[in-house]
Amino acid sequence: MDMETNTPLDSMLGSICIVLVETTHPGNIGAAARALVNMGLSDLRLVRPQAFPSPDATARAASGEALLSAARVFSSLDDAIADCGLIVGSTARTRSVSWPVMSPSEMAPVVLDASHQQRAAILFGRESRGLTNRQLDRCQLFVTAPVDVNHASLNLASAVLLLAYELRKTALLRNGSAASDRPTMGKDLLATSGMVEGFVAHFERVLHAAGFLEQPSDKLFRKIRRIFTRRALEEDEVNILRGVLSAIEKRIEGL
Amino acid sequence: MDMETNTPLDSMLGSICIVLVETTHPGNIGAAARALVNMGLSDLRLVRPQAFPSPDATARAASGEALLSAARVFSSLDDAIADCGLIVGSTARTRSVSWPVMSPSEMAPVVLDASHQQRAAILFGRESRGLTNRQLDRCQLFVTAPVDVNHASLNLASAVLLLAYELRKTALLRNGSAASDRPTMGKDLLATSGMVEGFVAHFERVLHAAGFLEQPSDKLFRKIRRIFTRRALEEDEVNILRGVLSAIEKRIEGL
Repeated sequence: MDMETNTPLDSMLGSICIVLVETTHPGNIGAAARALVNMGLSDLRLVRPQAFPSPDATARAASGEALLSAARVFSSLDDAIADCGLIVGSTARTRSVSWPVMSPSEMAPVVLDASHQQRAAILFGRESRGLTNRQLDRCQLFVTAPVDVNHASLNLASAVLLLAYELRKTALLRNGSAASDRPTMGKDLLATSGMVEGFVAHFERVLHAAGFLEQPSDKLFRKIRRIFTRRALEEDEVNILRGVLSAIEKRIEGL
Repeated sequence: MDMETNTPLDSMLGSICIVLVETTHPGNIGAAARALVNMGLSDLRLVRPQAFPSPDATARAASGEALLSAARVFSSLDDAIADCGLIVGSTARTRSVSWPVMSPSEMAPVVLDASHQQRAAILFGRESRGLTNRQLDRCQLFVTAPVDVNHASLNLASAVLLLAYELRKTALLRNGSAASDRPTMGKDLLATSGMVEGFVAHFERVLHAAGFLEQPSDKLFRKIRRIFTRRALEEDEVNILRGVLSAIEKRIEGL
C-alpha cells in the first residue's frame, strides 16, 4: 500500500540527481546516501571521489547502503551531468557570486518543474572550498541554505539533507499527499463535549464536598473548567478522571 | 553590523534548548552542535550521554566547538528541563503514538511563540530507540520529519539539523516582517516542567490517600500523568489544581 501511495512521489524525486564533486571524506558520501534515502531520492553520482568505495562511507550510509552501492562514479563533471537539463550549484553564502542565489525552499519547486521533463542535477563541491568557478559555470541556478553568517560552514551531507528535504516537502505537497506531512491523529477517540461537561459537573460536586468552594466563586470555577475544556481530552482520560473523582467522593462521604 | 542585524534573531533562537537524551555516539553530539551553530541556536543540553566530552564529538563539531564546550550535562531529564515551559518530543513516524504529530515546519511557529516568554525544549532520544514512553510523557507536542516510510531512520544530528533549520526559517521570516503581523501571545505563563512534576507527585499522594491506587498500577498512573503533562498547563492552573489537591487532602486526613 505504501508502495502505491509513493509511486508518483518516487518518480518526481527520482528524476533529480545529486552530484558530489571531488569529495574528500568518504564518511560524507555515506551520510549523503542516508539523507537521500530518508527523503526518497535515489540517484547519487560521484565525480572523482578521493576514496570510494570505503568502509567509512558504508558505515555512515545505514539504510542507504543499496543507494550507495548503486552510486555511479565519473571521471569528469561533464560526463556526470551529460544527461541532465537544469544544473543547480550548491554554494556557501558569499558576496563574490554575482548571480541570484535561491534558498532551498525557493529552489525546490523550480527543480521539480524542470525535472518533470528532463533529469535535473544539484552539484556539491569539495568540503574545503565548495564548487570551483569552472564548476559553477555549468550551473544555471545557485542555492544556499540560510545559515548563520558567523558559522556558515555546513557539513556536506547536511547541505545535501536540507536540499533533499525541501524537494521532498514540495513533492509531497504536489502529490496532494500533503496528508503525509499533516499531523496524524491517533486512534483514540476524543471525548464528546457531553462527556467533558459531565466530568466538569462531577468535579464541581467533589470540590464542594471537599470544602474547596465554600464561597462559590464563579471566576475561579470558570478557570477550573477551562483547564479541562480547552484541551482535547480523550474518552479514556475522562473515564479515568471520573474514576478518581468517585474514589475521592466515596472516601470523603464514607468517613 | 552583522551583530546588530542578528540581535533579535539571536534572542528568538536563544530561548530554545535542544536536549539530547542518553546519546550513544559522541560523534552525533558534535554534529548536532555544528548544526545548532549553523542555524543560530545556542543552548545544548545533554542527559546521561554515553561518552562526553569526547574527541569524536569535538572532531565533528567544527565551528560549533564553543557551543559544545558550553553544553550542560544532566543526570536526569527532569533536571535538564526544569526551567522550560513547552516541551517538544522528536519522534520517528509511528502509528502507535495516539497524539497529533506535527511536521517540523508546523512545529517551528508554535515553539517560537512559546519560547517568547519562557524557555522551550526539544527532546531527542537515544539513536537506537528514540525517546522512551516515560520521556515522551514529559512532552506536550510531538514532531516528526516527513521521511520516506521505508527509510525512516534519520541520523540523530540530521533530525536536530532539520528542526533547527525550520526554527531559523520561521525566525528569519518574523524578523523581517511587520511586528503587527505576528500572532499575539497570551500573557499567562506556562508552568515549568518542574511545577508540573510537583503537581503530578501531589496528585499521586492524594490518589493513594483516597484509596484509588490500592494496587498501584504503573500503566494507569502513566495515563493519569499524561493527562496533565501532555497539555501545556499555565502556572495559574497548576496553582489552582494544587489548591484543590490540598483541600481534598485536608478533608480526607482531617476526618
